[in-house]
Amino acid sequence: MNISILGTGIVGRSHAEKLSSLGHTIFIGTNSVEKTRTSTKSDDMGNPAYGVWAISHPEIQLVSFQEAVNASDIVINALKGEISVQILSVYDQTLIGKILIDISNPLDFSTGMPPTLFVSNTDSLGEQIQRTLPKTNVIKTFNTMSAPVQVNPKSLAHGEHTIFLCGNDLVAKNTVISLIKSYGWTHIIDLGDIRASRGMEMLLPNWLSIWQKYNTPLFNIKIVTNEIPTQY
Amino acid sequence: MNISILGTGIVGRSHAEKLSSLGHTIFIGTNSVEKTRTSTKSDDMGNPAYGVWAISHPEIQLVSFQEAVNASDIVINALKGEISVQILSVYDQTLIGKILIDISNPLDFSTGMPPTLFVSNTDSLGEQIQRTLPKTNVIKTFNTMSAPVQVNPKSLAHGEHTIFLCGNDLVAKNTVISLIKSYGWTHIIDLGDIRASRGMEMLLPNWLSIWQKYNTPLFNIKIVTNEIPTQY
Repeated sequence: MNISILGTGIVGRSHAEKLSSLGHTIFIGTNSVEKTRTSTKSDDMGNPAYGVWAISHPEIQLVSFQEAVNASDIVINALKGEISVQILSVYDQTLIGKILIDISNPLDFSTGMPPTLFVSNTDSLGEQIQRTLPKTNVIKTFNTMSAPVQVNPKSLAHGEHTIFLCGNDLVAKNTVISLIKSYGWTHIIDLGDIRASRGMEMLLPNWLSIWQKYNTPLFNIKIVTNEIPTQY
Repeated sequence: MNISILGTGIVGRSHAEKLSSLGHTIFIGTNSVEKTRTSTKSDDMGNPAYGVWAISHPEIQLVSFQEAVNASDIVINALKGEISVQILSVYDQTLIGKILIDISNPLDFSTGMPPTLFVSNTDSLGEQIQRTLPKTNVIKTFNTMSAPVQVNPKSLAHGEHTIFLCGNDLVAKNTVISLIKSYGWTHIIDLGDIRASRGMEMLLPNWLSIWQKYNTPLFNIKIVTNEIPTQY
């Protein structure tokens, strides 16, 4: 099917590659197609510019945000947290009735490293986005681990670790669970309605501590128990 | 050795039983010894009153907060988060040079269930306690799982799950790690100085979502990776 991704960073590209390899038609949305297409400068983390990456990914179609939102019934928000609400609000009418998979985290880098969260505890970015798009089915997921782990769960500990999701609409949630399973995920925990975004986003500070300690983002958490079934 | 525990709830009692079974001499501190000793009414969760529990635990000595803090060089804070700073500040002089193992969580039940956190993101209860007791070695640990899992890690998934700790003093941290190991823990992750309390306490909202979903507190998280050693 057609799937659109908003955001041209590593998270967006990782899902584009994965979904394309699974046979989907992928549109990546950006603010300025021309600027993104001709970019050549690597980012601060050493990741190649989109324009460089795109040369080896001719199957991925780079389009405007509006064209991306038009093209698909499933849209992935891989934008930075700080700009997510602002950009998504522009396309609220086009997004009515669609599924928005929200991967964003409310990271605030304004006071240096490690970042804090610009919304937490009594609200969340997932909830803010759902309030901004009241007629869109927002499903929060993937935000609790790094991009390589998100798209290739089997590459880490034989896939023996957990992905969470939450959202208000059960039908939309089942569609997203099918997509998640197609990535290779087996430990999938549905935490309920979109309010569970709070807990999922608040995992980030501890995730950052672990990253800092081990100097690798290639880890994840697994929920272990004697009683909970290990398969969704 | 002598170990003192502040707080007479399930967390305090669980550690008292465990540490006593390991051969330590245990003092439980309370605000009013007479009132606690003669209590007979179960709490809202159906846990027996301390006075009832104490009958089958004659080896545990119930004393005042001051006597408890006097008796040991290792003190466990198993008080409710909301009263921890207030009570600990009274004994700041006696606690100088001692180890305080902080298990408390900053849970705010004032707006109903699930609770929010009364401090998070840019500060934490662990840091507040360290600032309140600047000459005490505060080590945050055990706060990310339920009491039965804290004291009997092997009872859950053969002990294949993770406990975090953090604190500023390396010698004190090593003493606490030895104690944690004596409980049966093997997956121990030191997250650095006391600021890592933020991430550890912010795990609680997601922990509460999982508890609500599965209706059992008998679970924990395991950090999984291809690279990180599974032993401390």
